[in-house]
Formats: sequence, structure tokens, C-alpha cells
Amino acid sequence: MSLPTRRRPPPRPSGSTASERLKEAAIIEFSDRGFHATTTRDIAARAGLSPAGVYVHFPSKEDLLYAITLDGHLAALEMLQEAATDAPSPVEALRTTVGTFAQWHAERFQDARVVQYEFPHLGHEHREHILGIRKQINAVVSDILTLGVAEGLFDVDDIPATTLAILSMAVDVCRWYDSEIKRSPESIGNDYGELAVRLVSARG
Amino acid sequence: MSLPTRRRPPPRPSGSTASERLKEAAIIEFSDRGFHATTTRDIAARAGLSPAGVYVHFPSKEDLLYAITLDGHLAALEMLQEAATDAPSPVEALRTTVGTFAQWHAERFQDARVVQYEFPHLGHEHREHILGIRKQINAVVSDILTLGVAEGLFDVDDIPATTLAILSMAVDVCRWYDSEIKRSPESIGNDYGELAVRLVSARG
Repeated sequence: MSLPTRRRPPPRPSGSTASERLKEAAIIEFSDRGFHATTTRDIAARAGLSPAGVYVHFPSKEDLLYAITLDGHLAALEMLQEAATDAPSPVEALRTTVGTFAQWHAERFQDARVVQYEFPHLGHEHREHILGIRKQINAVVSDILTLGVAEGLFDVDDIPATTLAILSMAVDVCRWYDSEIKRSPESIGNDYGELAVRLVSARG
Repeated sequence: MSLPTRRRPPPRPSGSTASERLKEAAIIEFSDRGFHATTTRDIAARAGLSPAGVYVHFPSKEDLLYAITLDGHLAALEMLQEAATDAPSPVEALRTTVGTFAQWHAERFQDARVVQYEFPHLGHEHREHILGIRKQINAVVSDILTLGVAEGLFDVDDIPATTLAILSMAVDVCRWYDSEIKRSPESIGNDYGELAVRLVSARG
């Protein structure tokens, strides 16, 4: 399978519902100034709603952050599981999962910054729920590494630590990527897929 | 050469001067709530000074962020240059520079979060100055890769992209590391040094 061919963020389900508009507005505000410096009023104004209109959909600013974080994690999990399932071998599975994950962190760098960097501001129960999804995301990659090692294709000393390092490399794309960067998200995805395969491949 | 043996953040030059106390206080406040949600008053209170006392040392909150960011980047550059200079081969140079860099991002995860994630909030001139230092940091690693390729030790398709990916892997440590994590900063440094070497080593 090949990576998606789109070169710029696909349109979000933009403005289709007030709830979607609020999440989009909050992503821009949170990624720009941080969760704590953003008021519900800022988000309402950007979404074209009254502050009271926000509370209809999200009882608190933290619930909005949770909704955005949950969307991002579920999208990532689904992308990775799909890429892993379609791949004919552990090598291809690693290449496409890591490539897809890195490409998403470039295409959706604002969403990703909110999802990754504002995570500590979630309440305890929400944070625990997201950590559960993170474990599933890690498991997609660590299962691929385990299978590749069993088949003699990969040589990995410490599967959990290597899984974390590979995902870290892709996550950090959202820190340095922005719309001024000349490399396309697709080419970044291709490069990171290759780097992940290099990192774990068994030596001749 | 071996990595520093310390296992926990070394003491900063703590509280020695009002200026140092202010930077320490700002690191805690910025890493906790973000630059924009932190007031000069919050920082002054934590440092045991009056708000007017802050302005004696830093004319604006942005100047404090710049001072912290400059300290972090100059410390990183110095660590990397020192590690690279002392190493007997490109393999050792890569192992110790990346190891030292990753270890710092664990030991000083709060400093690192401010330095890495609040960077977009610097003013234009300050941002440009820091970008100049980042280029020098990247150059330490890309020079090692170039030398290793010339000596037939490394096999790297794209030196700038690989340099960025290797440094990214280490930078992202500050996102997931905290004082609850059981792996020591030293062992994280050792692991990341090895992963970097694996990533670029020429195949038998």
C-alpha cells in the first residue's frame, strides 16, 4: 500500500456543526496561545457563537480540550491500525504506519500541537482515558516490531523503548513543521517510514 | 568518553542572583501553564520579588523567555561541541552527542519544554538569533554524519533530514519524560546514542 497522496491538510469536516466549528476554533486558539491563556469567550468569538452557545456543547474549556485530544488520538489509532492491517509484511507495516503517523503530524501540525503539548492540562479521568488509547497506539507499532523480530527481519534490543523512540521522532514533526516548510507532509511521511525501517532492520 | 554519570538534574546555579531566581521561577510557571497564561506577577511571587523587581532585570516577560531560551540553546551547543571534540571517531561522536542531548532533555524536562514549545512566542529578532544557534547545533550533528559517510562508516541518504530526525527523537524526550518515569536520564541518553548510531551505520 502507498501513503495517501494529499500534500496539504485535507479539509476538516469544516463548520458542518456548531460542535465541529467550536473544536476548530479551539484548535487554533489553543495551538496559538496555549490552553490556559485561551478563554471560552475567545473560542466562541472565533466560532461565531455566544459564550453561552459554547456551554450547550461543552460544559467546560477542559471538555473542549478533551474532545479535541480524543478526536486526534482516535484518528491516529484508526490510521495506524488500518495501515498495519493492509500491509503484506512487518517491513511494509512499519514503513506505512510510521509514515502515516509522521505525515499526520505535519499535515495537522496545529491539531497535533494541541493534542501532544496541552495533554497535561486534561483532568485526571480524561488523561487516564487518553493514556489508554496511547497504549493501543504504541501496541500497533510494538506488535509490528515483535512480529518482525520473530521473522528474523528486525533486530531490536528493547521493543518498548524503540517503539517510543520511533513514535517520538514522528510526533516531534509537529514542533518544527509549519506551512512555510518546503518539504511536503507526504515526503516527510515517506522519509520517516524509511528511517524507522532502517532503525530496526536486521544486519546482513 | 562516557556520558556524565549523574542520574537526576544537576542543581542549577540556584538562587545565586535575583536574575537566576527569576529565570528558575519563570521556567516553572511557563512549563506549567504556558507563556501567555503566566503573568510577571506570578513569576515575581515565586521568586520572592516585587513585580517592579522583575523589571530591573528583564524589561518584559518576553525578555525573560528569551533569556531562558538562550541559556538552554547555548548550554546544548556547548555540550554537543564538547562531546563531539572529545570523541575518537564519528561513531563515538554521534553516540555521545545524541546521548548527551537526549539526557539533557530528560534531566531538564521543564527547561526543555519552555525552550522547545514556547519558542514561537519570542519576538522576531530574538527568534532569529535562536534560529542561528539552532543551525550551529544541527551543524555539530550533520558534520559528524558527513565525516562518517566520508569514512565509509555511515550510510545516509539525506544528511539534513536525518540530522533533524535524530535530534527530534531526543527533543521529544522532554514531552513524555517526568519525575515519575522509572528509566533514568542517563539510561535514556545511552539508549538514544545507540539508536542514532544504528540509524546511520553502513550495512555489512
